Amino acid sequence: MKTFEHDDLNNLEHRYRARLINSLSGFKSANLIGSQDADGQLNLAIVSSVVHLGANPPLIGLIMRPNSVPRHTFSNITETGLFTVNQVSAEFWQAAHQTSARYAQEQSEFDLVGLSAEFLADFDAPFVGESQLKYGVKLIDIKPIEANNTEFIIGEIQQIHVAENALRADGYLDIETIETVAISGLDSYHVTQRLSRLSYAKPDKPVSNLTLDGQQSAPFDGQFAIVEN
Amino acid sequence: MKTFEHDDLNNLEHRYRARLINSLSGFKSANLIGSQDADGQLNLAIVSSVVHLGANPPLIGLIMRPNSVPRHTFSNITETGLFTVNQVSAEFWQAAHQTSARYAQEQSEFDLVGLSAEFLADFDAPFVGESQLKYGVKLIDIKPIEANNTEFIIGEIQQIHVAENALRADGYLDIETIETVAISGLDSYHVTQRLSRLSYAKPDKPVSNLTLDGQQSAPFDGQFAIVEN
Repeated sequence: MKTFEHDDLNNLEHRYRARLINSLSGFKSANLIGSQDADGQLNLAIVSSVVHLGANPPLIGLIMRPNSVPRHTFSNITETGLFTVNQVSAEFWQAAHQTSARYAQEQSEFDLVGLSAEFLADFDAPFVGESQLKYGVKLIDIKPIEANNTEFIIGEIQQIHVAENALRADGYLDIETIETVAISGLDSYHVTQRLSRLSYAKPDKPVSNLTLDGQQSAPFDGQFAIVEN
Repeated sequence: MKTFEHDDLNNLEHRYRARLINSLSGFKSANLIGSQDADGQLNLAIVSSVVHLGANPPLIGLIMRPNSVPRHTFSNITETGLFTVNQVSAEFWQAAHQTSARYAQEQSEFDLVGLSAEFLADFDAPFVGESQLKYGVKLIDIKPIEANNTEFIIGEIQQIHVAENALRADGYLDIETIETVAISGLDSYHVTQRLSRLSYAKPDKPVSNLTLDGQQSAPFDGQFAIVEN
């Protein structure tokens, strides 16, 4: 094992440190945030920080750096209170990455990278036509993170649009089927291969595999020991 | 496409909604949080909400529900100010999932699920011996999220321990090589297959593939159009 102690971290060249630290959280979600300003100028930006906050009410969070890319997204969200989240798939991952270039405010990344803006179900922010799982979000709160001048954006999900073939019987969305990608570090993109869904863990018995529709299938083969409670 | 409008979401059966909403953020990181209380009672809990906050200072965040699992982790972190983050790999993903069972405070999930507690480099919280990428974190701040009574925990990375074969020349950690898993929904686990690393995006040229060590390799084949700036 290689160890970096506190002093080592302080002394790393800054781009090396950025790549290293960005790799630590594990696989990250790949989403395009669609927004528009009060004049209807569209914006699209890839983010890797969308995180589930809760199901009832349905909330998500994401981190933004107002003084960095995607700064136009941040100003649009605060101006209109609305944005869309569009999962990135293996069909358009390079175009999604290209949205991170520093385009001018009056330019629409939709046009520049070749993705389609679409408006759905009376929601006043642009969705990505190519995305197979997308939802409209209303801004609820912004928490300033003083430690590094970032902002934690909290939004409530207003409507969901998803490819029929991803929706499973118990509400689980099979995002592997629609080839949603994952990000590692700053710039690496990955498709996935499912190990299994697992049953809800209880103290007194080992977990078992679930089918894609959430039905119990085979119990485990004893690869790890569960001490009886 | 299947659409869920606002009223549809409100009317979903609660477990169905939990599975649906938990699937929206995309692939999530799989990490075990190691902690101990003031008496040295160890705790280990899987979380899927660890998110990168910034590289300088090196910060991560995670969401916790103090009134739910992993409540012991939350109380340990507030009590001691320290915890570890340990990436979950394909070698022990089922054991990691099993830590989400509601064990009693006086029980150590390390023992119960069969993972090894180890103490490294004078850091006063337990690491997972089996994990190939793990780091010690100091609590910096807690932001209450009033919208659903969760807490956003902010921590500074103090030390990193990583398998030598994952560390690439430019600081990127190849977490696919060490078989770090990703989570989708509440209970699905996935390994990954890299598409590519991509070059830093600039407005006036298409992105290109990078090697694992961050070197420029082939430019793109024109799958998507970049309009000149």
